[in-house]
Parts: sequence; C-alpha cells; structure tokens
Amino acid sequence: MSDTLETTPHGATDAEHDAHGPAGHHGYIGDKQRYLNRLKRIEGQARGIRSMVEDEKYCIDILTQISATTAALESVALGLLEDHLRHCVVDAARQGDEQAEEKIREASAAIARFVR
Amino acid sequence: MSDTLETTPHGATDAEHDAHGPAGHHGYIGDKQRYLNRLKRIEGQARGIRSMVEDEKYCIDILTQISATTAALESVALGLLEDHLRHCVVDAARQGDEQAEEKIREASAAIARFVR
Amino acid sequence: MSDTLETTPHGATDAEHDAHGPAGHHGYIGDKQRYLNRLKRIEGQARGIRSMVEDEKYCIDILTQISATTAALESVALGLLEDHLRHCVVDAARQGDEQAEEKIREASAAIARFVR
Amino acid sequence: MSDTLETTPHGATDAEHDAHGPAGHHGYIGDKQRYLNRLKRIEGQARGIRSMVEDEKYCIDILTQISATTAALESVALGLLEDHLRHCVVDAARQGDEQAEEKIREASAAIARFVR
Repeated sequence: MSDTLETTPHGATDAEHDAHGPAGHHGYIGDKQRYLNRLKRIEGQARGIRSMVEDEKYCIDILTQISATTAALESVALGLLEDHLRHCVVDAARQGDEQAEEKIREASAAIARFVR
Repeated sequence: MSDTLETTPHGATDAEHDAHGPAGHHGYIGDKQRYLNRLKRIEGQARGIRSMVEDEKYCIDILTQISATTAALESVALGLLEDHLRHCVVDAARQGDEQAEEKIREASAAIARFVR
Repeated sequence: MSDTLETTPHGATDAEHDAHGPAGHHGYIGDKQRYLNRLKRIEGQARGIRSMVEDEKYCIDILTQISATTAALESVALGLLEDHLRHCVVDAARQGDEQAEEKIREASAAIARFVR
Repeated sequence: MSDTLETTPHGATDAEHDAHGPAGHHGYIGDKQRYLNRLKRIEGQARGIRSMVEDEKYCIDILTQISATTAALESVALGLLEDHLRHCVVDAARQGDEQAEEKIREASAAIARFVR
C-alpha cells in the first residue's frame, strides 16, 4: 500500500494490535460501510480539487473546496477517534494501568496531531 | 464536475474572474504542474485511508494518515493563497480601492475557513 | 467568576462531577502548580497583546504574539485532556459501560471543539 | 514589554515599519478601542481559566473555556490580518513589486502560523 505512511508512530506490530480480539475488532467495524462511503466521497473531492487546478478555476473556489475536504477528513478522524476511545481505550482501562497508560499516550499524541 | 462544490461563496461569475486577463492568469499557473503532482499524491493518500479502513487497520494508524493528508491539503491551500495574494490581490490594489476591498474581503473569508 | 462561560456543555452538576472522589481528584492535581504557572504566563501574553495594540505595534508582530498565545493555550488543553483521559475516563471505564459511554461522548465533544 | 516575544519574525525595524506613515497607520487604528475591549475580555477569560484550575473545576469545563478563549484570540487575529491586508499590503502593492512581494511573504507566513 504505497499510499500510506511507511512508519507508524505507535511502534506496535499488527499482532499486538490484534491481541485483544480477532481482526475487525478495531472499534469502527459497526460503521465500516458508512466510513467507506464518506471516504469515497472525500476521494472524489480530492479528485475535484485536482480538476479545478487543471482547469485553472478561480483560486478562492479551489480554497473553498480544499477547506471542505479537510473538514470532511477531520470529521472522519473525530469519528474514528471516538470509536477508538469507546472500544480500544475502554478495553485497555479494564485490562490494567499499564495497558491503559499506553493507549492514553497514543491517543493523546494522535489528538495533538489534529490540534496543533 | 460533480465532485466540486456546487455553490461558490464569492458570487462572481467565471467571466468576472477572468476579467483581468486571459484564462490561466489565476496566479498559480507558474507552479501548475507542481500543484498537480502534489494533488495527485493527496488523492493517493485519500485512497490509502479508504484501503486502511477497508482492511481494518489499527485506528491510530488511520488517524496518522488522515492528519498527514489534511496537512498536505493545508499546505497546498497556503501555497495557492500566497499566489492569489501575490497576483490577484496586488492587481486589484492597483486597479482601485473598490476592487481591492472586494478581493481583501474574499481572501479574508477564505483564510477564516482554514483557521476556524 | 464572571470570566468563565456561564453554561457548561456537559450538563452535570459539580456534585455529580465530584461523585467519584473528594474535591481535587479531577486528574490534573499532580501538575497543578505547573499548570498554574503556565496559565499565569499565558495571562501575561494576553496582556502583552493588548499593550501591543495600545502602542500600535506592527500588525504582523501582534499576529505572531497571538499565534504563540493560542499555541500555549492549546498545549495546556492537550495536557488537561490527557490527564482527563488518564484518570476520569479510565475510572469510568472500570465503573461500567454506561459511565464510560458518558465520559467518551463528553471527551469527544471537547476534542472536536479544538479540531474544528 | 516582557510579555511579548523578543524576536520578530519579519526582521524589520520599527523605523522601517513606520516608513509609510506616522505612528498609528498600522491599519487597525479605526477599530482600536474595539480591539482593546475584546482583548481586555480575553485577558479576563485567561484569568478565569487559571481560577478554574486553582479551584480544581471539572476538566471538561476548563477545556470549554480554553477553546472559547482560543476562538476569541483567533477572531481578533483574523480581524487584524484583514485590516493589515486592506491597508499595509494594498499600500505596498501600489508602491511596487518588491514592496508588495515582501508584504505578501510576511502575511503568508503569519497566516501559515494560524493554519498549521
């Protein structure tokens, strides 16, 4: 998957991540199709931005499209984060202090990347 | 172009926008290919996010990919905005107070959409 | 305290908030003096911004001071949020699903106010 | 003024900044009292945040107050930036390409500090 970042900041293997359950228990499974639909639409928005630059549309209109796309991405991120807190962080809290601490640090670092 | 927003917030027609020169004089033409390359890469990132949800990758990794994609989009937007100030706003300033005022209000509204 | 918002979005009384322990168990107590020092410095930055406007300093310098101040506030918020997840959300997770759900929703809404 | 940043990113002296007119021609003079009032209120908000931590108020309520304060600061910044574009950047555009370019770069860097 060459489009994704090659490094993962949490430094955990997929095996570790999957330790608390079978594949698919990453919290967002319930709404998976809805997330996929939203992301498909975001891909369309990104494609639209490129078409607008290709066609040399008015700059302010392109900026409007970009801010709509980043807002859509941030909304997906906030949804995924809430799902993550609801499932993964709550599970870790019940497993023990150490497990909780690791997930809290990881989630806080992810939140900081959206705020700063 | 169904992927782009149907409404434009500035309320001007394409003809008006092109009034200060032939098509392609929207300021970013010099770097057009570079913008297209960056946007193509951003489309790939968006596609990558969808693959990650499809494959039920670890939530925090998806969030990292989303924050990288929004940062890339914001960087494109800041570049386009600087080009817009450099060409369109400067041209308007030289045309007269009214023209300048219209462009300043429009640019400020676009900036606010990225800050808030 | 006229400077604080009159409405609280979570709709819980102080008594409810304190239900899980004596006053001061809101998670940030360990670093309280450090937070107070940082906030005292932020007050000084805010006062400095007003002085700059009063003295009609260069606009860009005022903007630099404002962005430094918002970054300092966001950094305090991220710290408080991490402390909140570490203590209050983890405690709620151990109390039960309903308690966890309430805290997750509340924290997610707070996060969204910083991202959007 | 120990509360302000000691370095200025634009690297220009006050004398240079004042070159285009007497003190007070920094663009925001018309609304100066209104900015001062808004900033006085923001100082009160900052003081309120410190009181909340001092009194160990509920963490989410403190976060709400912080996000309201950063939003108020960003709103002041957007106003100052619009005034700056309206006066200083437009003036520079009329003076010449070099003057315009310097102001555009400086303003774009200031905008980037609020977006990123």
